Formats: sequence, structure tokens, C-alpha cells
Amino acid sequence: MNRDQLLAHLGPEMARIDAAMRADLAAITSPMLHEIIHHAIFNGGKRVRPLLLLLAARTCGMATTDDTYRLAMSFEYLHAASLLHDDVIDHAEQRRGKASANTLWGNSNVILAGDYLHTRAMTLAGTVGSPEILTVIGNATSAMVEAEFLQAKTVTDIDQSEENYFAVLAGKTGALISSPCEAGALAAGASTALRQALRDYGQALGLAFQVVDDLLDYLGDPAKTGKAVGNDFQEGKMTLPLLCALATAPARQKQTLLDLLAATPEQRRAAHQTAHAIIEENNGFAAARQKAEELVREACAALSPFPDSDAKSVLIGLAGYVLTRNK
Amino acid sequence: MNRDQLLAHLGPEMARIDAAMRADLAAITSPMLHEIIHHAIFNGGKRVRPLLLLLAARTCGMATTDDTYRLAMSFEYLHAASLLHDDVIDHAEQRRGKASANTLWGNSNVILAGDYLHTRAMTLAGTVGSPEILTVIGNATSAMVEAEFLQAKTVTDIDQSEENYFAVLAGKTGALISSPCEAGALAAGASTALRQALRDYGQALGLAFQVVDDLLDYLGDPAKTGKAVGNDFQEGKMTLPLLCALATAPARQKQTLLDLLAATPEQRRAAHQTAHAIIEENNGFAAARQKAEELVREACAALSPFPDSDAKSVLIGLAGYVLTRNK
Repeated sequence: MNRDQLLAHLGPEMARIDAAMRADLAAITSPMLHEIIHHAIFNGGKRVRPLLLLLAARTCGMATTDDTYRLAMSFEYLHAASLLHDDVIDHAEQRRGKASANTLWGNSNVILAGDYLHTRAMTLAGTVGSPEILTVIGNATSAMVEAEFLQAKTVTDIDQSEENYFAVLAGKTGALISSPCEAGALAAGASTALRQALRDYGQALGLAFQVVDDLLDYLGDPAKTGKAVGNDFQEGKMTLPLLCALATAPARQKQTLLDLLAATPEQRRAAHQTAHAIIEENNGFAAARQKAEELVREACAALSPFPDSDAKSVLIGLAGYVLTRNK
Repeated sequence: MNRDQLLAHLGPEMARIDAAMRADLAAITSPMLHEIIHHAIFNGGKRVRPLLLLLAARTCGMATTDDTYRLAMSFEYLHAASLLHDDVIDHAEQRRGKASANTLWGNSNVILAGDYLHTRAMTLAGTVGSPEILTVIGNATSAMVEAEFLQAKTVTDIDQSEENYFAVLAGKTGALISSPCEAGALAAGASTALRQALRDYGQALGLAFQVVDDLLDYLGDPAKTGKAVGNDFQEGKMTLPLLCALATAPARQKQTLLDLLAATPEQRRAAHQTAHAIIEENNGFAAARQKAEELVREACAALSPFPDSDAKSVLIGLAGYVLTRNK
């Protein structure tokens, strides 16, 4: 399934998810709350998480209904709630190329709007869904919060392990990708083994997505990504390309990187090309890329217990798409 | 039931609720997250909301179990989560006479800790409880958020109606007091009528509590309340004593109040005794006090469908206690 076929398949789904969300959010009475939440939800976003739930349910043989769409949207709400709080936490001025909600309405209103969406997400998960699905979405949020604390504590550790890097990724990105996959299996009444298979698919997909993100931070085209190149290095973040290079670089080059990591952000920005060249020369980018490819293979392999279906093809297509993205 | 009898009854309950929370929170892995949440939960607080759930369930004839305590604690988590986010929103430096969590750990960590507790509250409500109880706790949060927006929009409106004042109170305080009462009825499998009766009890109790709070802002002893007298007036907040006085004051006195409300906070602070005297002379405090007493009578009357029991006596005792509190 190529990119155009994928989009042709997904377009009508996205429209139906959006319609379900608009109907649900009509219950909001405060005009400002309504505005903030509409800005957060209907200002871009590809509905990846609700789509994963629908596709996972169908891969398990379920005929999805309106209620499945209502359940699916809870994961978009959770995603939007976490972005609202993230942007307050990071003092982000922009989101998807537009002014962030906190820039437009201030931190207080945005914290509250995030709480509203978070509440609605969990209520839907436990009422349209089930106690098991509520537990899955609850664990995803707990994992995200724990990962934020782990990251804050370790992100600039120069002797950080690859294991720690992936533990942070698993909580920050993996949990919110694997949980809708698992919830889809639960909605379909799938066996424990199939539920685990879809969870594994989502976990590997989420990690691959984030590794590619970390690669794009070094290698992306700013015109496409909308982000300056080398942000992570400048901030001293120990992401996979850097970790791979440090693991194999000869002593002198390793020392150059370590000296830069001990320097100021300004010094790192000035020396970004030096760092880039050392990572390149020591195959840091290639190794990270290879890891992303491995993870995508893992994601697809996790789906082997399922019979062929359109939904399964789309899940496999989505996994492949992660490797081709350039923004 | 006098205050000492009440406390003798409630002490062991509070200890059992605290033990359930400590056991549950042992699942947290991040040391800092653990510290923030323990600071938020075990730094005072009377466990009013979980107690209400337990008492409501028993008033409906339920024999409470360990699981009822686990369900009850979800309302303490929700309360603590909302205080954490409130203190970030209000830039509060203190909470219960000690440094607030945001002062100690910064806004970002505290927003995340609030999200963690919020998630745990809802997961418990929907798994130890039921989808109906999850809906009740979800509606309480939505009502709180909506009320925050309504308050921000209207709190300093000089022509604010008493109806609007009570609508804000219902969402900000009432919902989080009535919801554990309703959840207790649901846990006990009570009829719709008894569920509504306990919800009415909690709603009236919550409103009475907040009216007394607004009275204490004018009349309290700062040595006991830990707050400066006249804060609300200085901030231009239209609370019940002021609204009642404005409704009945002669034109000249009314104009004095309106001029002060249009002045600066510093001018209002300087003229606080003038305002206090006008409110007093026009029975603003007496009228608000009377309203609180009416609400407490309403709360107790709501319990009339229930047969006499220890739990019912404690609920009635708690309602009376609201009127005697001085801090």
C-alpha cells in the first residue's frame, strides 16, 4: 500500500472521527473553553491514535460501529490534553506552525482545558469502552508522566545507556501509540495473545517513530520539519545518534563530543557541524536508522498471528510510512 | 453528635483511608513524583470527600469493604490533583501553612503530578467502582473546569446575580462534595431516588461550606484562618455578603461600594473598614449567614428518606459542623 492509497483509505476515517469529536464537544458551555479545545483538536493532527484503535479492532475481525469511533476519539483527546500541558511546561510558543494555545489564552486556561479533555478521554474509555480499556488508557498516562520525570533526570547524562533512552521513549511516545492498539483489541474481545501482539506492534511503531524524530532533528530539512536543525544537540539531549556515536568513536573524537556536552548551549550551537561530522563518521546516524528499521520490522512481525485483511495492510503500511517521513 | 464525638468517629476512618492511599501510591517509580504526591496528599487535609463516600454508602445500608476504601480514595486524589493545578494557576506560594508544591518543585513537575493523580482517581473510579461512578467523577471535573471559566468571566461583575454566584460555587465546590455522596449511593446499589437524595445533601453541604468560607474571608480571625481579612473585597470578588448588601443598601451607600469596586486593589484595601461597615449595616453578613443555615437545613432534610443509622448521624453532624467552623 503506497502513500496515496494509504491517504485515500484514511481520509474518510479522519472525517468520521472529527465529526464524532465535534458532536461530543458540543456539550461544553464556556465559550472560551470551547475555543481553546477546538484550537487544540481541529488545528491539524492526523488522528493517528484513534485510527490505530479502529484498525486494531478490525484486524481482530470486529465490525466497528459509531461507538467504536466514540471510543477511538478518547485517544485523540488524551493526546491533545498532553500536548496542551506539554506546551505549558515547555513554554512553547508554537504548535504545528501556529501560535500555541498557551500563547493565545495563557497558561491557566490551557491547564484547565487540558484537564477537561483528559477527563473526557477517561470517561469515554471507561463508559463506551470497559474497565480494562480504562486501565489501559490510565496506564498510558501514568507511563507518560513517569517518563517525563525520568527524562528530566537523565536526558543530559553523558553516560546514559541506550536502555534508558528507550525507557523514556517507551513512556513518552510508545505508551500513547501502543495503548489505542491494545484498546482496539479489547474492544474486539480479542484473546490475550492477540491483545499483546497489537500492543507490541504499537510499542515498536511508537519507538520507531521517535527514533526517526530524533534523526530528523539532526538531518531534517528545516523548511519541511519547521524546526531548526540540531536543537537536541544544542540542548545537550542524549538521543540515539549521539549515543551510538559515543559508543564507537575513537578516544579523541569521543573526547571532543564530551567536551562539547560539558560546554554551554551557545558553544554547542557554534560547534554543531563538528559534532554532526563526528556522529556521521562513526555511523551514529546509520546505526540509529538501522534501529528504526529493525523496530518497524518488529512491528510488522508482531502482526503475523492475524489473517490478511485491509486493516492489517493499513497497519503495515503505516509502519513503513514511519521510515519515509521527512517532517 | 458533638465535635469530639465526630472526631472520635472519624479518626480511625482517616487512618484507614491514608493506609489505602500509601499502599496504592507505592506503585510510583520516580522519586521526585513520589515526593510531590506525598507532599500533596499527606500534608494535612481532613479526607472529607472519601469520608462522605463511605458514610453515604453506609447510609444506604452497605457494609463497606477494603474496596470501598480504595474507591473512596479516588475522590481524595481528585481533590489533591485539583489543588495542585489550582496552586499553579493561582501562583500560590503556600498551602495549609506550608510552602506549596509549585514553590518547592516548580510548575512543570506539579502539573505532571496533578495529571498523575487525576488519572489514578479516574482509573480507580471506573475499575474498583463502575462506569456510572466514573461518569459521576468525570462530570465533577468537567463542572469544576466550566465553573473556573465562568468565574474568571464573571467574578468581578458588579451586577452579578446571586444565581451566577451559586452556579460558580456549585461547580467549584459543590460538585466535588456531591459526587462522592452520589458515588457512595451507587456503590451501595441504591435506588435512583436515594442516589439523588445523597447528591442533594452533598450539593447543599458544599454550597454551605463555601458561603461560610466567603464569610470567613470578611469576618475570620487571621490567626486561625491563616489568611488576611478582606482578601476577596480587595480583589474585587463579588461574594455573597457583598451581593446581599448591594441588593438592599440605600443609594448613597451602594454608590460608595460601587465606587470602591471600580477603584484599584490598593484603594480597596485602604477602604476595607468602610466596606465592612456598609455590608454589616445592611445585613450582608447576616443574610449570607442565614443562607448558609438554610443550606445546612436543606442538606439535612435531603437525608429524611433514610432510616436512622450511625452513618446518617455523622452526615448530619458534619453538616452542622460547617456552621461552627472558624478556619
